[in-house]
Amino acid sequence: MSSVLITGASRGLGLELVKQYSCRVPDDGLVIAAARNMSPELGVIVNQEGSRVVFVAVDISNESSVLKSTPTVTTHLRGKGLDILINNAGVHSWTDGGVSQMSDLGYQLRVNVTGTHNMIRSYLPLLQSANVKKVINISSPWGSTSSARDFYFAPCPAYKISKAALNSLTVQYALSHEAEGFTFLSVNPGWLRTDMGGSDGDLSAEEGASAVADLVASVDTSSNGSFKTISVSGYDQYSGQTIPW
Amino acid sequence: MSSVLITGASRGLGLELVKQYSCRVPDDGLVIAAARNMSPELGVIVNQEGSRVVFVAVDISNESSVLKSTPTVTTHLRGKGLDILINNAGVHSWTDGGVSQMSDLGYQLRVNVTGTHNMIRSYLPLLQSANVKKVINISSPWGSTSSARDFYFAPCPAYKISKAALNSLTVQYALSHEAEGFTFLSVNPGWLRTDMGGSDGDLSAEEGASAVADLVASVDTSSNGSFKTISVSGYDQYSGQTIPW
Repeated sequence: MSSVLITGASRGLGLELVKQYSCRVPDDGLVIAAARNMSPELGVIVNQEGSRVVFVAVDISNESSVLKSTPTVTTHLRGKGLDILINNAGVHSWTDGGVSQMSDLGYQLRVNVTGTHNMIRSYLPLLQSANVKKVINISSPWGSTSSARDFYFAPCPAYKISKAALNSLTVQYALSHEAEGFTFLSVNPGWLRTDMGGSDGDLSAEEGASAVADLVASVDTSSNGSFKTISVSGYDQYSGQTIPW
Repeated sequence: MSSVLITGASRGLGLELVKQYSCRVPDDGLVIAAARNMSPELGVIVNQEGSRVVFVAVDISNESSVLKSTPTVTTHLRGKGLDILINNAGVHSWTDGGVSQMSDLGYQLRVNVTGTHNMIRSYLPLLQSANVKKVINISSPWGSTSSARDFYFAPCPAYKISKAALNSLTVQYALSHEAEGFTFLSVNPGWLRTDMGGSDGDLSAEEGASAVADLVASVDTSSNGSFKTISVSGYDQYSGQTIPW
């Protein structure tokens, strides 16, 4: 593995994934940190790591923004393909008063589902020209329709519906590209202490990112089209299990 | 049961549901046929049935259009609540060349998912003031993420993803309103010979609509939040089974 593109890289899990991969890629490897804007924290990493970590401006919800980013990434890859795409960018909201009060369903579907599709379809040629061919969609067990009752306590129906749709997108891509040796995966990165997860999360963003990178390294085509949880020692809920749809 | 609102009523399954319910509601009952425009076929039924079948103009994908329709429906109901809402309106498309060629995912999510949400949230007060409290979302087994491999032959990924999201919406509403005695259901109406289903379908639109109406009549709150297939004698695939998410 010598190249990875991570969306939503300006903060939270995405930022930590950039840090993790900057230590995991070889000296001539490349970490492409994609976000709408470069945060100060991401700027520090980009400056520290020199040419191994590059920032690329992308708004995944805007198809033309995604398309515009591909020539830049192609140039950075200097003729090589892209090994891994981690679709981490996404939005989340809380809805008070029940699902009927949900006013941002269209927005969450546009970013979390159509935005991820914009990324995959635009970067597919670069992924096809590499050997690793792994595409990771950061999802959530809250998107498991089968488990909806277990997670009813969390008042974020738009997020849950968007993650159910994202999981379906993962499977559609997995089936469409399995003959080429792709591994498309929905991943539960754990409940992390980030802006999105809040301060009560089970794991630090660093622990979550490390476990996601371990999972990405360990999976092969036999996991194509599945929904996996990270594995973290000491946490029964993070034991690498497959989550039902 | 004395009142039902059916969206997508201008043709296909929706039109046949209007016909079926025009025979099933009592003399003082009401069938509200909602569609963007009144088709000639729907016009014939509305004229034949007098005040028992009324047309209401609604574009479900346009929230203000949906909101504008509710006072009209309230007037037609003359102080009564709405017993049943059948969210039948939806779009479908074929995608050549695999899921990466899918260019209408946003559109299908907007109509099939957000559009259905627009309807439910706007008509919830009228449903709450009636006793029956049934909301039927017309779905498809192709939206079953668990069964995606079985249906991979059908090149309509945007439709499948939108129906997976619709199923999640069904469950979110089911959980949010179960204490009030609601029955929210995703329903597989069968493969019908309609504009959407084509000419090779298993059943006529009339057979499908009749089976959907039978299913709606037979279910109670014990089915709230499930995904049911119609039941048609002689067809193993339509035996009232529950479909996995």
